[in-house]
Amino acid sequence: MSSVQNNIYSPSTPRAVVYCEANFGRIDGKTANGLVRHSQRFKIQSIIDSKLAGFDAGQVLDGVATGIPILADLAEALAPANGPVDTLIFGMAPASGRLQAPERHVLLEAIAAGLHLINGLHEFLNDDLEFAAAAAAKNVRIVDVRRPPAQGDLHLFSGRISSVGCKRIAVLGTDGAIGKRTTAVILTRALNERGIKTVMVGTGQTGLMQGARYGIALDSLPCQYGSGEVEAAVVHAFEAESPEVIVIEGQGALSHPAYLSSTAILRGSQPQAVVLQHAPMRQRLSDFPKIPMPTAASEIKLIETFAPATRVIGMALNHEGMSEAEMTAAIALYEIELGIPATDALSRSPQRLVDMVVRAFPELKPMANAIAL
Amino acid sequence: MSSVQNNIYSPSTPRAVVYCEANFGRIDGKTANGLVRHSQRFKIQSIIDSKLAGFDAGQVLDGVATGIPILADLAEALAPANGPVDTLIFGMAPASGRLQAPERHVLLEAIAAGLHLINGLHEFLNDDLEFAAAAAAKNVRIVDVRRPPAQGDLHLFSGRISSVGCKRIAVLGTDGAIGKRTTAVILTRALNERGIKTVMVGTGQTGLMQGARYGIALDSLPCQYGSGEVEAAVVHAFEAESPEVIVIEGQGALSHPAYLSSTAILRGSQPQAVVLQHAPMRQRLSDFPKIPMPTAASEIKLIETFAPATRVIGMALNHEGMSEAEMTAAIALYEIELGIPATDALSRSPQRLVDMVVRAFPELKPMANAIAL
Repeated sequence: MSSVQNNIYSPSTPRAVVYCEANFGRIDGKTANGLVRHSQRFKIQSIIDSKLAGFDAGQVLDGVATGIPILADLAEALAPANGPVDTLIFGMAPASGRLQAPERHVLLEAIAAGLHLINGLHEFLNDDLEFAAAAAAKNVRIVDVRRPPAQGDLHLFSGRISSVGCKRIAVLGTDGAIGKRTTAVILTRALNERGIKTVMVGTGQTGLMQGARYGIALDSLPCQYGSGEVEAAVVHAFEAESPEVIVIEGQGALSHPAYLSSTAILRGSQPQAVVLQHAPMRQRLSDFPKIPMPTAASEIKLIETFAPATRVIGMALNHEGMSEAEMTAAIALYEIELGIPATDALSRSPQRLVDMVVRAFPELKPMANAIAL
Repeated sequence: MSSVQNNIYSPSTPRAVVYCEANFGRIDGKTANGLVRHSQRFKIQSIIDSKLAGFDAGQVLDGVATGIPILADLAEALAPANGPVDTLIFGMAPASGRLQAPERHVLLEAIAAGLHLINGLHEFLNDDLEFAAAAAAKNVRIVDVRRPPAQGDLHLFSGRISSVGCKRIAVLGTDGAIGKRTTAVILTRALNERGIKTVMVGTGQTGLMQGARYGIALDSLPCQYGSGEVEAAVVHAFEAESPEVIVIEGQGALSHPAYLSSTAILRGSQPQAVVLQHAPMRQRLSDFPKIPMPTAASEIKLIETFAPATRVIGMALNHEGMSEAEMTAAIALYEIELGIPATDALSRSPQRLVDMVVRAFPELKPMANAIAL
């Protein structure tokens, strides 16, 4: 698949280094992890994480080399031998949403070296006088991906979602940082490869950095506008692309004590179907180690009670902490327990995701043979 | 009860006129309606609504005179005969959250007359150059009640709610603008009058304008911080007051397509009990006339599924469109259908709300005789 991805880059595609010190491959490095797996808007040249310097990023993440090296620091990333770089992406998503002092220093160094900055934190660097002055002096841009639209441009829920005449599938989960976005990206690509025109609507900063053309950074919007902004993004994607399927990236979990954006996703996009992402071996919520994970069964009941017109049509499992044999067993057990198909989007064929969707919507007709995009 | 309220005003309490043109007593006038019923932070001197000029505001609202006159315009409100006024409160809460042109004109006139401005809209008037300049020229203050705290002061959910060792009762509803805040205010007052120390946590702009000492304007906060800010407000109220009961004002409805702040209220405050506010005669959602109201039974099921540790302990009914006999019948029918007590907080004795709470929490011991606050 990496050869397919390489084709999408033009000479004008920005070349980016992703800063992920001490967190690459880990949960708080999920922005960097996502960009190594899938990036349309930026060509990823390297990852900075001194703890893993020397390894291939794809090898560390999924056991498959991607040709993206992990480097020790910014100076290495800027060395001519590592190719041209014009942008630094801050690749971590800490729960606090805020920048630590050493990170601040590296980002200011990057600006001083003439790099544009892509920032997905809740803290907006354009509002920081030191960053704004540094960027102006070097004539580089800082993009605060999570900055919400201006007040007057925000949409309240309007009911226009009822005019969207295609299938809508939300990928929800039982926790944050569990693989929802990755599954949504793979599902979207697999359906398109089988000739079912599908568009993804992103709802988080990483999806937008990866190049989702439709979507919003939901968790930084004022609560009042959450479902309306999701609705507006779905309506926009439908009107602009006339797809057969819209896949909506989920956020957090409906049962989560803190990350509740999935409530706005269910109300705003009114999906007919949900694919539920779950990590069988995860015992406790990733950001809340005192709180046990919900079961898949309880999350399904909650989703279908909260959104009575929605069915959970399948499970996507995250293999963290699992052997191949354990995953095979887990897939079989969930299928028996829950009566719906299960797969692992990363270790199993994407065809299984296509089958899951076609089983739920037999009116969708995939082509017999896969084609390259 | 109005005599009790009058006692709370000191000579330094601000004197306010509430602007509510063409909307007093109606759903979009809910801020003005709430301030006539209960106001600790401001003494309400008059209401502006030319359509109802000449009437007593309490008479129009609840059939009981409050001595607050409804006047035709700002000039009348400023006439010496109508008493001193130093503040104008914008008393409407339109779904758009934005100011219309004629309203803009009146607010600028008020500033020109030297009045402070209290604004509960999503549109922040301090950010409007014309308003900011006018206020500076007259040395008056504009308070944008819905402006969220600075990014660095926002709280993520932390789990500290588990340290709050008192009963927490959320007043949720089946729609917006249905009476949740009014019931929460009456419940808080009634419990205190029976010697059960109770503090209310406000979650909307009107509750904060009324004088709730604890709370936040939830629907203007970034989604990510909703449950954490509710948790922080409840923890703050508990630590500062050591009450036996905290009453949390609800927002919107858990089943609502647009107003989902109750999700953050349930997750952040983790109430042991919910009182559900419902309007038996309302057929369709107030801001979404195409969407039918949920039933009380379906909303209870949704609440208890979304928050499994919470029980709905009683119903508070809104008598809009109902005769006295119809309300009596409705109370009896809901009690039989749902197996929990029901009342109307406005037309029935507040004792019924106290009984509802004590039935659910027999360890709370009300005093035999009511005392004045």
